[in-house]
Amino acid sequence: MYEQRIRRPELMSKVMTAAQAARLIKNGMTVGMSGFTRAGDAKAMPLALVERSRNEALALTLLTGASLGNDSDGMMANAGVVARRMPFQADAALRRKINTGEVMFIDQHLSETAEQLRSGDLKEIDVAVVEAVAITADGGIIPSMSVGNTATFAQQARQVIVEINLSAPLALEGFHDIYLPVARPHRGAIPLLTPWQRMGWTAIPVHPDRIAAIIITDSPDSPSNALPPDEETDAIARHVIRFLEGEVKAGRMGPELRPLQAGIGTIANAVLHGLIDSPFRNMTMYSEVLQDSAIELLDSGQLSMASASSITLSAAMHEKFIRNLESYRERIVLRPQEISNHPEVVRRLGLIALNTALEFDIYGNVNSTHVGGTHMMNGIGGSGDFARNAQLSIFVSKSVAKGGAISSVVPMVPHVDHTEHDVDVLVSEWGLADLRGLAPRERAPLIIENCAHPDYRPQLRAYLAEALKGGGQTPHVLEQAFAWYGRYKRDGSMLVK
Amino acid sequence: MYEQRIRRPELMSKVMTAAQAARLIKNGMTVGMSGFTRAGDAKAMPLALVERSRNEALALTLLTGASLGNDSDGMMANAGVVARRMPFQADAALRRKINTGEVMFIDQHLSETAEQLRSGDLKEIDVAVVEAVAITADGGIIPSMSVGNTATFAQQARQVIVEINLSAPLALEGFHDIYLPVARPHRGAIPLLTPWQRMGWTAIPVHPDRIAAIIITDSPDSPSNALPPDEETDAIARHVIRFLEGEVKAGRMGPELRPLQAGIGTIANAVLHGLIDSPFRNMTMYSEVLQDSAIELLDSGQLSMASASSITLSAAMHEKFIRNLESYRERIVLRPQEISNHPEVVRRLGLIALNTALEFDIYGNVNSTHVGGTHMMNGIGGSGDFARNAQLSIFVSKSVAKGGAISSVVPMVPHVDHTEHDVDVLVSEWGLADLRGLAPRERAPLIIENCAHPDYRPQLRAYLAEALKGGGQTPHVLEQAFAWYGRYKRDGSMLVK
Ligand SMILES: CC(C)(COP(=O)(O)OP(=O)(O)OC[C@H]1O[C@@H](n2cnc3c(N)ncnc32)[C@H](O)[C@@H]1OP(=O)(O)O)[C@@H](O)C(=O)NCCC(=O)NCCS
Ligand SMILES: CC(C)(COP(=O)(O)OP(=O)(O)OC[C@H]1O[C@@H](n2cnc3c(N)ncnc32)[C@H](O)[C@@H]1OP(=O)(O)O)[C@@H](O)C(=O)NCCC(=O)NCCS
Repeated sequence: MYEQRIRRPELMSKVMTAAQAARLIKNGMTVGMSGFTRAGDAKAMPLALVERSRNEALALTLLTGASLGNDSDGMMANAGVVARRMPFQADAALRRKINTGEVMFIDQHLSETAEQLRSGDLKEIDVAVVEAVAITADGGIIPSMSVGNTATFAQQARQVIVEINLSAPLALEGFHDIYLPVARPHRGAIPLLTPWQRMGWTAIPVHPDRIAAIIITDSPDSPSNALPPDEETDAIARHVIRFLEGEVKAGRMGPELRPLQAGIGTIANAVLHGLIDSPFRNMTMYSEVLQDSAIELLDSGQLSMASASSITLSAAMHEKFIRNLESYRERIVLRPQEISNHPEVVRRLGLIALNTALEFDIYGNVNSTHVGGTHMMNGIGGSGDFARNAQLSIFVSKSVAKGGAISSVVPMVPHVDHTEHDVDVLVSEWGLADLRGLAPRERAPLIIENCAHPDYRPQLRAYLAEALKGGGQTPHVLEQAFAWYGRYKRDGSMLVK
Repeated sequence: MYEQRIRRPELMSKVMTAAQAARLIKNGMTVGMSGFTRAGDAKAMPLALVERSRNEALALTLLTGASLGNDSDGMMANAGVVARRMPFQADAALRRKINTGEVMFIDQHLSETAEQLRSGDLKEIDVAVVEAVAITADGGIIPSMSVGNTATFAQQARQVIVEINLSAPLALEGFHDIYLPVARPHRGAIPLLTPWQRMGWTAIPVHPDRIAAIIITDSPDSPSNALPPDEETDAIARHVIRFLEGEVKAGRMGPELRPLQAGIGTIANAVLHGLIDSPFRNMTMYSEVLQDSAIELLDSGQLSMASASSITLSAAMHEKFIRNLESYRERIVLRPQEISNHPEVVRRLGLIALNTALEFDIYGNVNSTHVGGTHMMNGIGGSGDFARNAQLSIFVSKSVAKGGAISSVVPMVPHVDHTEHDVDVLVSEWGLADLRGLAPRERAPLIIENCAHPDYRPQLRAYLAEALKGGGQTPHVLEQAFAWYGRYKRDGSMLVK
């Protein structure tokens, strides 16, 4: 049994139930789990840990690649299994626990967690729990639909629990490129000069002795929860495409553009989807996650290849993807998130980075994470890794949320994830503001007139006019800067009646 | 005459007065001038441009490496010669013009200006004005006490004006390492694996035909205006050193530490000065600017070598430095600021980055630039390049300013230059907060109790307690967040009476 999946016979003795394996994990431990944007997460251990926590205290520090699927984050949070969590999540129940302060959430740039573990700035991983399609004869772990931090966890943990997922096709072998920087000092350059290059192994090298348990699972990844494009996201896509056409015309890039990065979520997916109707050809992606739109562009031939750290698809697209897996073999590379997001590579390749803002302000500062300035939505994810180092850093957002009660263009964002220095272009369904080379006083009118919802423009103009009286590089009326949030709380809308 | 300084005889015909050379510059042009933290700035052309502007309209876009000396920035601003300015400045008169909105100031990460010029995101340089110690036989320009953006400007400008400064010793030849990344795509890795490596030329390769004018000058750089260490900066230095000793003891680094970066200004210089009394040996620097403290550490032998983009010294130290120039030849490398600050290199080398905050908040967000949230002080400089990518990102500040009327630890900074993600350690004269691996709710008490001035701690505790009632990942009372700034304006102090 499982000869294809466990190719080192002596490891067969390590096969056990999740409940048995869960005993390796002790209260207070630091656990690193695979999983990135719902892809390639461990399926059985979260349930086993929740089960165990019914009868004994079990509070862990949980690290992952990014968000988990299968409600694992929520279930573990509700069971009190997760005391500390990093570097990203996107679960409603966990989010609640974070915002009440029951779970300590350390929100990190996704390229940095591995680096901090390596340099000892974070406590070491006790146990890694990683999903795999197979274990090779020399103990190498072949990941499934994501790499994320799996390689880092598996290599640094004292013990490794492998979940072999029979529902993940064995043919995924060969899609991964496992390369990690070595500890400092004596680190070399990352030898990646193009999105398509391969530098490493197709499996994560792990000494077989450190594989402490193997669990057999059979449940698929959770499908993507991105919503389909709508009128507003279509408009945003059109603005972005027209802008990129201008860049090509101006000679700043060829019709293959620069390698594309597109963030998680509905809007970024929709914008990428819009590229189907674009004149661009032979594009490449160097991104964190591939959503449905990336597969569509590979199928249409507009995208010649895509590099990422995970693949997160709708149920229908996932089925099609698996059916045609061979056709993607030479065109998709899955890398550790430290490499997919690495400042060195992002800067060298000169990406076009497309990420979604919750809100942005009239000077171009972006809030990606904190609703109302205080409450965590998901986390900064890779948006900072990309926005800081890309050739073009584009942030998109619908101009309003909650049916118009919230303007996503505000006088001053009450939480800054990306400063004006890291934002080149802002886009809403109303239009696009190209901020390159502009001072804050020049940015403000452009952002107000091009991106804000017309209903909110008079209020924004009035704020700016008042602010300009006080002078400064970045004029503000501090006493008024957050009045809109108070108004929303009080009146149910940011709009002045 | 000048055979040593102008080694290509045909270029002798290009020698002219600054007034003659200034005619090459037309109203509306973009001019790139050498100069970085008062070092190696062009001395004659700023005066000639001011002179010209008396009789004709002359409004330029002025790019530099960083701040200029010799009051050039102020004189040009007052004369109206500077309409747009990037990427950094530190001049009182120019600052006033920026804050009234008369000069548009584009505040940039210092590693990015060259990149944006190269990719066409900024308007091209019409004329470069660069100080040199000499021009080589093949037209190469040997910079003086800084490299900054000089190589980028000289290579990209349509015309180059060279100021040969006879007061800058010819023996500076050989200190510079001129290497710049090529345009994308097809860019390789930056082959710098240690702070001391050399990758490029000792002069900036420029085709002699593009050298349009040569001016002979003889005035020295402005001396550094950093103040001497005082009781508070000594205390800050002690906290930093004790912390680094702990890092060595914990095995996270050896006694040579990691390559050091130290920001401009009084405090960073004082902290570095404090390392004289530290147990660390064989240290290296990979920084932007070398201040007096770096030379002291080279002299004491604790620093084995230093890489930077400029050398900015007090008058006394400058004299000593020039006198003993040969002793530094093998131990100092001057690089373009794109390389001294490059994310790729900073991340690879794993620097200890030490920068100064104007103020920071209870969650670890840092304001380096905007006094009162609106008025520009100097600019973000290289602090973001280093803080984001360093192995350890340390920000220091005195706990109060203006005799205690301003707390530099506040509930919420009204301008964010560095988000909590990019800040590992905060230090004031009162103590140090090690924020690594902590969630915002854990950071706040640590920052308040360890770094804030005791007079302000009760107010900060009260704010935090109130904020916690509202919940969230990063609790705040938005209506109260900036009340301290209002109080300072109204009552002359942030302190509640
Ligand atoms: C910002 C982010 C939450 C947007 O997600 P999205 O799915 O594209 O956008 P949506 O418009 O559907 O908004 C998601 C929710 O935020 C709400 N929202 C949007 N703007 C808001 C605002 N200004 N204030 C409050 N809520 C807002 C929406 O109403 C929606 O709420 P709902 O789930 O209750 O309906 C998401 O992109 C994110 O987490 N980004 C940070 C991480 C990141 O950028 N990673 C990039 C590399 S992968
Ligand atoms: C932040 C910065 C201005 C501090 O400079 P410094 O010389 O070390 O510090 P000082 O304590 O002397 O402060 C400088 C001035 O700011 C004022 N200041 C300090 N904290 C303040 C605060 N919280 N609010 C208002 N003013 C404040 C001081 O009173 C002083 O004013 P003065 O010149 O009128 O006396 C300077 O480091 C800077 O410009 N940093 C940004 C660029 C950078 O970090 N580059 C790093 C790579 S080189």
